[in-house]
Amino acid sequence: MSIIECVPNISEGRRADIVDAIARAVDAVEGVRLLDRSSDASHNRSVLTLAGEAAPLKAAVLTIFDLAVQHIDLRSHTGEHPRIGAVDVVPFVPIEGATMADCVALARDTASAVSERFGIPVFLYEGAATRPSRTNLADIRRGQFEGLAARLATPEWAPDFGPPRPHPTAGATVIGARMPLVAYNINLDTDRLDVAKKIAAAVRFSSGGLRYVKAMGISLADRSLVQVSMNLTNVEHTPIHVVFDFVQREAARHGVRILESEIVGLVPASALVSAARHYLQLEHFTTDQVLENRLRRALSIGH
Amino acid sequence: MSIIECVPNISEGRRADIVDAIARAVDAVEGVRLLDRSSDASHNRSVLTLAGEAAPLKAAVLTIFDLAVQHIDLRSHTGEHPRIGAVDVVPFVPIEGATMADCVALARDTASAVSERFGIPVFLYEGAATRPSRTNLADIRRGQFEGLAARLATPEWAPDFGPPRPHPTAGATVIGARMPLVAYNINLDTDRLDVAKKIAAAVRFSSGGLRYVKAMGISLADRSLVQVSMNLTNVEHTPIHVVFDFVQREAARHGVRILESEIVGLVPASALVSAARHYLQLEHFTTDQVLENRLRRALSIGH
Repeated sequence: MSIIECVPNISEGRRADIVDAIARAVDAVEGVRLLDRSSDASHNRSVLTLAGEAAPLKAAVLTIFDLAVQHIDLRSHTGEHPRIGAVDVVPFVPIEGATMADCVALARDTASAVSERFGIPVFLYEGAATRPSRTNLADIRRGQFEGLAARLATPEWAPDFGPPRPHPTAGATVIGARMPLVAYNINLDTDRLDVAKKIAAAVRFSSGGLRYVKAMGISLADRSLVQVSMNLTNVEHTPIHVVFDFVQREAARHGVRILESEIVGLVPASALVSAARHYLQLEHFTTDQVLENRLRRALSIGH
Repeated sequence: MSIIECVPNISEGRRADIVDAIARAVDAVEGVRLLDRSSDASHNRSVLTLAGEAAPLKAAVLTIFDLAVQHIDLRSHTGEHPRIGAVDVVPFVPIEGATMADCVALARDTASAVSERFGIPVFLYEGAATRPSRTNLADIRRGQFEGLAARLATPEWAPDFGPPRPHPTAGATVIGARMPLVAYNINLDTDRLDVAKKIAAAVRFSSGGLRYVKAMGISLADRSLVQVSMNLTNVEHTPIHVVFDFVQREAARHGVRILESEIVGLVPASALVSAARHYLQLEHFTTDQVLENRLRRALSIGH
């Protein structure tokens, strides 16, 4: 069994009856589990977290579009969060027994179905992007729903699927594949904010550091400490232990030690296994040697 | 869902039809999965590996006893491996969502049922032992089947369950609870066997080292290296990273470096997560933050 996560962002965060109806419809799809949902009235936006295999997830996403197209009209939609569509963004995330390539294929397949069934233009983003200028969600969403008609008419912003004009009420949508995000913070045994800021600048991609790291230096005033606060966008390619060792070396050159680190929220098991392999200098180790993996596979076959 | 592993050792390794019948019967128990089986003719012994929840595992073990009592007669049994019973040893091992205490309770419950249903005396061992002299399997099995009647008649070796005399054909049996074993080797960047032997002596429990470590120093002649070859009998209480760091310090005092380490066979995921936590100095981390654990739990509830 493979598990893919899907996190649709819907442009409705005020009318609870609409969001409830969408959540119920998703949960009724055989093989899909609604793990989490949250709505924000000021953003006028809801985020659902689903998990399942590829085919049922695609069916669930189409169900969401069906209800969103019926009930959401972006011409009268207001809210603080940028959006271009009634269903604004749909990322697929590989979790277990699924690869990034599987999620890219699922994104393309879902995008094709959405454009055909609803006449909505679709952009592919992140891992599924068809050109570098479409990798970043913020770039695609620039100008929002209100600027969409003009934008879609330019050759540069022709959609990856569907017509080169917005759906009158549902706008456009962005579908793609990305790795799980890991929120990772390292606390330094100092109150010198300049040190945290320098280390953040050294480690983050945007200023020349590690490819899948976003970072900033902040103060934890209540503890008289500073923190390098990070988002790791691909812990498979830029592993947590590489980030830790990098920050440790940078801190040392300022005469500062790491006090502790923390993972906020969820982390893929493979990221921790990978850190253990690194520090224990493990050779010839495969995830098939993890007892639970072996048992789970054996238990899922047959009975 | 909780997963417990059970590894019954049966005193029959030559008559394939008997072992096949036992394996088939086990596999037919709803909720139990036969993960592995191996028979050794010179030992005249077979080892089954089962997994499942407590109640079905108990049912499977009783099925094994039923067939073993019918078909195995220790009075005519020969083989190299020490044994006191037709079903010789039955350890329960906590894997996921189950604790050592759960496995001790299951061992007692199963032992009680075996003694009542078959009139077989049962010793509890390892985690389930009722006194220190019964912790070690080799101590319980001393004198084997042939010495059993005399031994059971002494107050010191009164069984934990069942009558103080052997079953005429099936002898006695040993049932208990233990942690998963981890075979862990550390290769040193030297060919000096004396160094590996000194480090093994320093790290192993029997000569004053870490509590849950067995170790010996050996040569890997084909690679001109030496190895500290270990069995870790409880990686929860004596974690892998503690062993690694200990060996690294001991090696350093002989001017030797660790080249690599290796895990042979299976390892519980928690042991690797624990190593990652240690080296990354992770604070406030719970296994509930492991994405797969969260998803699996969510997926197992409801649908």
